[in-house]
Amino acid sequence: MTLTAEVVTSVKEKAKKAKHVSKKLGLLQTEEKNEALLKIAETIEQQSDFILQENQKDLEAGKEKGFSEALMDRLMLNEERIHEFAESLRLVTRLTDPVGEILDEWTLENGLHVKSRRVPLGVIGMIYEARPNVTVDAAGLALKAGNSVILKGGSSAISSNKAIVRVIHEALDQTKIPRDAVQFIEQTDRSSVQAMFHLKEWIDVLIPRGGASLIKTVVEESTIPVLETGTGNCHIFIDQTANVEKAIQIVINAKTNRPAVCNALETLIVHRDWLKENGAALNEALLQHQVTVHGDQDAQSFFSEAVPAEEVDWTDEYLSLDLAVKVVDSIEGAIHHIDQYGTKHSEAIVTEDEKNAQIFLNEVDAAAVYHNASTRFTDGGALGYGAEIGISTQKLHARGPMGLPALTTTKLLLSGDGQIRS
Amino acid sequence: MTLTAEVVTSVKEKAKKAKHVSKKLGLLQTEEKNEALLKIAETIEQQSDFILQENQKDLEAGKEKGFSEALMDRLMLNEERIHEFAESLRLVTRLTDPVGEILDEWTLENGLHVKSRRVPLGVIGMIYEARPNVTVDAAGLALKAGNSVILKGGSSAISSNKAIVRVIHEALDQTKIPRDAVQFIEQTDRSSVQAMFHLKEWIDVLIPRGGASLIKTVVEESTIPVLETGTGNCHIFIDQTANVEKAIQIVINAKTNRPAVCNALETLIVHRDWLKENGAALNEALLQHQVTVHGDQDAQSFFSEAVPAEEVDWTDEYLSLDLAVKVVDSIEGAIHHIDQYGTKHSEAIVTEDEKNAQIFLNEVDAAAVYHNASTRFTDGGALGYGAEIGISTQKLHARGPMGLPALTTTKLLLSGDGQIRS
Repeated sequence: MTLTAEVVTSVKEKAKKAKHVSKKLGLLQTEEKNEALLKIAETIEQQSDFILQENQKDLEAGKEKGFSEALMDRLMLNEERIHEFAESLRLVTRLTDPVGEILDEWTLENGLHVKSRRVPLGVIGMIYEARPNVTVDAAGLALKAGNSVILKGGSSAISSNKAIVRVIHEALDQTKIPRDAVQFIEQTDRSSVQAMFHLKEWIDVLIPRGGASLIKTVVEESTIPVLETGTGNCHIFIDQTANVEKAIQIVINAKTNRPAVCNALETLIVHRDWLKENGAALNEALLQHQVTVHGDQDAQSFFSEAVPAEEVDWTDEYLSLDLAVKVVDSIEGAIHHIDQYGTKHSEAIVTEDEKNAQIFLNEVDAAAVYHNASTRFTDGGALGYGAEIGISTQKLHARGPMGLPALTTTKLLLSGDGQIRS
Repeated sequence: MTLTAEVVTSVKEKAKKAKHVSKKLGLLQTEEKNEALLKIAETIEQQSDFILQENQKDLEAGKEKGFSEALMDRLMLNEERIHEFAESLRLVTRLTDPVGEILDEWTLENGLHVKSRRVPLGVIGMIYEARPNVTVDAAGLALKAGNSVILKGGSSAISSNKAIVRVIHEALDQTKIPRDAVQFIEQTDRSSVQAMFHLKEWIDVLIPRGGASLIKTVVEESTIPVLETGTGNCHIFIDQTANVEKAIQIVINAKTNRPAVCNALETLIVHRDWLKENGAALNEALLQHQVTVHGDQDAQSFFSEAVPAEEVDWTDEYLSLDLAVKVVDSIEGAIHHIDQYGTKHSEAIVTEDEKNAQIFLNEVDAAAVYHNASTRFTDGGALGYGAEIGISTQKLHARGPMGLPALTTTKLLLSGDGQIRS
C-alpha cells in the first residue's frame, strides 16, 4: 500500500509540533499540569451538548453500517458518560506526578555525583479503536506524565473524537500547556496510521489499544518502540486440593463478571480427582450462570451440556459466556497447557497445597499470576494504580497494568568539578 | 531476500531449545549460577591453547581479506586477553543477582496480597560484530540474570566464537545450567540474522551491538522488541563562564582518551566570548594532542589549522582524533544544536554559572547529561554497575549503560483466600 504524500506530510507536521512543545511540557510543575487537566474536565462538562451532538453523527453512521449492539454501546455518549470523562481527569490530578522523582543517587570515588531522574518519554502515539473515552484518558495520562500525545482513534468514532479534541484544545488555551501537546489525526484511512510507524525522530513510543489485528499490525510494521497491550487468554487451574467454594466462586467471577475484558477467564483446567468429587456442583454453577462449556473428551462426561472443544477453543479468547475446559492429572499438565496456549496476561491456581501454589507462582510466565483469587484484578484501578494507559503483555519497559510511571523514562544527571577519566 | 528453509529451521530449533531450558534456568539459585560461571572461567583458561589456535584461523582469513589494523587488533586473542575473559566472568559472579528481588509489595483492602518480583526475561538474542569477547560477556551476563542466550557473532570471528562456545558448553556440562542455555548460530550469512527477527514466540528481546547499519537493520526488521544500543554523537558546550583549566582538560579527555568509543566527544560547541578570551590556549592543547578541528566559519579564525566543517561533520561520529567545532552566542544556541544533531547518548556543559548548568541538565534530552565532567563516564564499569551488556540510547525499558537489571522483567504475584471482584 502506498501512502499518499499529503497524509504523510500532515502526520509528520503534527508529530513535529508535538515534539517541539514536549520539551516545554516536560518542565512544567505538577500544579500547572493539574490545573490544565481540571480546566479540560470543566470545559468538557460545559460543552457536553456540543460533544453529544457530534456523537450523534457517529451513532447515525454506525446504525447505517449495521454496527452490533455492543459496538453501538461502546460508541454511545450521554451526560453521565461525559461526566465520567471529567471525573477520570480529576482522578488523574490526584495521582502522584512521576516526573522529577530521583530513582537512585550515588557519588563515585572521584567525587562525580550521579542522579537517575525520572523524565517524560516525550511524544506518545496512541492508536485505538471505537471508544471515545480513550481520547480523554490517554490525553489526561500523557499530559500528567509530561508528554505530548498524538491520538489516532477509530473511524467509527471520528466525529465524537474530533469534538472532544476541539474542546480539549479550547481548554488548553487557558492553561500553561500549549494546544499542540494534544495532536489528533483526522484522516481515517489506514495510511494515516502507517505514516506514524516511521516517525522515530519525533514519536518516542506507540501504544496500540484494540483488537489483536490492530496490535499485530503495529508491532510488525512500526520501527518506533511499541508498548504492546495484548490479548488475555487467561486460565484458572483447579488443583486436586482446591477448596470447593473458593474454586467455584473464583471461576464464576472470572468468567461472568465482565466476559468481554482481557482479564476474564477463557480456559478452565481441572484436576481429574477434584472434578470427580465436585464436578456436579461446578456444572450446576456454570449452568446457572449461562456458561457454555467447550470440553475436551474427559471434561464432556462431567458437564451435562458441554460441546466438544477444538483447537481454536484453546488458542482464542471467547470474550463471551463460553468456557473451554481441560482435564489434567497433575499441576505439570496444567502448567504445560498454559505454556503452550497462554498469552502471558493473567493465570491462576486454586489450591490448598502451599507447595503447588509456589510451583505455579514461580513457573508460570505471565504478567500476573494468582493463588486463590480471580484473574479480574489485573487492572490498574483494582490494583491501586489509580488509572492505567493499558495492560502490557510484553516483558520490556512495563509489564501488566501500566500507570503513569510507564509513560516516563530516566536520565542520568552527572555533576562534577572537572572530573576526567584515566 | 528469501531465507533458505534450512537456515530458518535450524535457527528456530535453537530458539526453541533456548526457550525450553530458560524456565529451569530462571529457577536456579544464585550460587548455582555463580558456580557455573566460575567453571566456564576456569575451563576457558584451561583451554586457551585450543581457543588461540582457532583464533589463528580468523586472523589468517582477516589478513587475506586485507582487514585494517584496528579490526585485526579487535579480532586478535592472546593469553592475556583470554585471562581477561575469565576475569570478567569472575567479576559477574560478584554482582548482585537481580532475580527474585521484590520491587514492591502491598495488600488491597480485600486482603489480596500483591508482590512485584523481578524475573528473567527468558531468551536474549545477541547480534554483534567482530570482538570475540562479546561472546563471553553476553553469555555471562545473560546466565547470571537467569536467561538463555542466542549468540550471533560476526563472520570475521566465526572460528574464535565457535571455539569459545564449545568450551562454554563443555564447562556447562559439569554444572546445573544445561548447555542448551547458550545457543550459537554458526551460519554467517545475513539470512541467519533475519531468521531471528520473527521468532517472537521463543526470543524475548534482541540486543544488537555493532555499527549503525547493523543496528538500523535490526530495529527496522525485527518484530521482537529490541534494546537499541546506539551511536554516540556527543557534544560538550563550553559556556561563557567556563573555567579554562576544567574546560580544556575535559575536552582533551573526552576527545583523546579513547576516540573510537561511543562516549567520546565528537562536536565541541563554544560560547563566542569564552573563545575570544581562551581560544589560543584551547587551540594549543588540541594541536598538542593531534586533534584536527573541523570548524564552522566563526571557529576557523580561532583554530590555526582548522578545516571547514560540512553538514556531515555535525551529523556523524568521527571515532577518531577529529573534532567538529561550532561557535554560539548563548546556551540556547548550544541546546538547539544538540537537539538537532545529538543522538541522545551523552552531552556535557562546562560552566561556572549554576543557573545555566541547571538549564542544560533539565533541557537536554539524552541518556546522560553532564556538568563539568568528561562524557567518558557513560559506561557501566565507570559508573559502578560492575558490567554492562551495552549502552541504550532508546527510552523504553533501560536508558544509558545497561547492567544486569536490564536483562530482567517483573511479574505480579497475587495471593488470596478466594477474593473475587464485584
